[in-house]
Amino acid sequence: MRDADRPSRPASERTRVRRLPARGCYEREQIHAILDATPLGHLGLVDGGQPFVLPVLQARVEEQLYIHGSAAARWVRLLADGAPACLTVSAIDAYVLGRSVQKHSVNYRSVSVLGCALPIEEEDAKRAALEAFMERILPGRWAEVRAPDERELKAVAILSLPLAESAAKIRTGGPNDLERDLGSAVWAGVLPLRSATDEPLADPSLPAGVPLSESILALRRRIEAG
Amino acid sequence: MRDADRPSRPASERTRVRRLPARGCYEREQIHAILDATPLGHLGLVDGGQPFVLPVLQARVEEQLYIHGSAAARWVRLLADGAPACLTVSAIDAYVLGRSVQKHSVNYRSVSVLGCALPIEEEDAKRAALEAFMERILPGRWAEVRAPDERELKAVAILSLPLAESAAKIRTGGPNDLERDLGSAVWAGVLPLRSATDEPLADPSLPAGVPLSESILALRRRIEAG
Repeated sequence: MRDADRPSRPASERTRVRRLPARGCYEREQIHAILDATPLGHLGLVDGGQPFVLPVLQARVEEQLYIHGSAAARWVRLLADGAPACLTVSAIDAYVLGRSVQKHSVNYRSVSVLGCALPIEEEDAKRAALEAFMERILPGRWAEVRAPDERELKAVAILSLPLAESAAKIRTGGPNDLERDLGSAVWAGVLPLRSATDEPLADPSLPAGVPLSESILALRRRIEAG
Repeated sequence: MRDADRPSRPASERTRVRRLPARGCYEREQIHAILDATPLGHLGLVDGGQPFVLPVLQARVEEQLYIHGSAAARWVRLLADGAPACLTVSAIDAYVLGRSVQKHSVNYRSVSVLGCALPIEEEDAKRAALEAFMERILPGRWAEVRAPDERELKAVAILSLPLAESAAKIRTGGPNDLERDLGSAVWAGVLPLRSATDEPLADPSLPAGVPLSESILALRRRIEAG
């Protein structure tokens, strides 16, 4: 069965959006689009009853989220031992500016994935997963640079979290001002936000004449295009 | 004692950065600057052994982080019951592009705060906290728009998480390429990222001639200035 032919998944009891259910959406295309647009994720873990939230880079490969870290990191060992995790990816698209304090908000897109993130152990599978991870975040770069040797591959852990239990939450549009505030003379609307880049900075040790890589030019174009 | 005169706090056993300790920093000015620059936070909670990570807006007011939500939300009730929390704020400043797969990274700033986030219950204190919250995220806006009435104030919860147990993690600079890769003919360096805005969009119901508010012009300038 091709990826795109699968039905969107139903919300589980744990991922169903309880507040403002109109903002919940369980369509897989939307979940994929949000994850693919925002490599920064926040990984939640429990250690001795205390929650911890770590920033991680995440990359979706079909129905898995890959994350990576040092093989020696405590959070990697916790996940490898089967600790339940939550990975959330969020981006703010706009400030929403209403005519009353209460009607201020942000437009955002967010996905949360619940499950276990297990390390990929076998060497060939791990190398392939690392390549897929990098290819998602920075397409074309893998082919431009030196591949990891055996020791480098050993030092990194790459973990795979299935998207099976995931949900998106999205807010779009302008302020939902109350009828009674519409006559107010204050400006209301949205201030759109986006990511932008500045000029790439070459490493001081780079010899003169080495051109900017194709992969970096393409990444920059993609970020600037939103 | 004035705020700025307090010494930076020592890392607790739980917030000490274990991996790559050179990236850990516990200086309160840096912690404040990171929190103040990035209103999007990720709140970690445990419910029945499962971690959950929610996107929230956060605003620092002196040595407290304020977050808000619907008074009826499940996560708000969990926090009000004293559930331990972790709030992490992260921003990516650049892609770091090395000459080998392993030497790719991102420059980022991140703060994690551990503790309990308790609701501010008393009406005057809650109103003041909500104003301070909004003043941090969108200075000047409170004075421009209608203040919350009693019912609106009741519907919102505002919670306060002390910064007592917090730590920052920061990566800056270019790729740390290996000596043996420096002769490679591939481009290496960093691609800086930043936030930008697009033209504000007025609400369709806004009468002609209402000028853009000062607070929104100032917010826009602040975002564009980085």
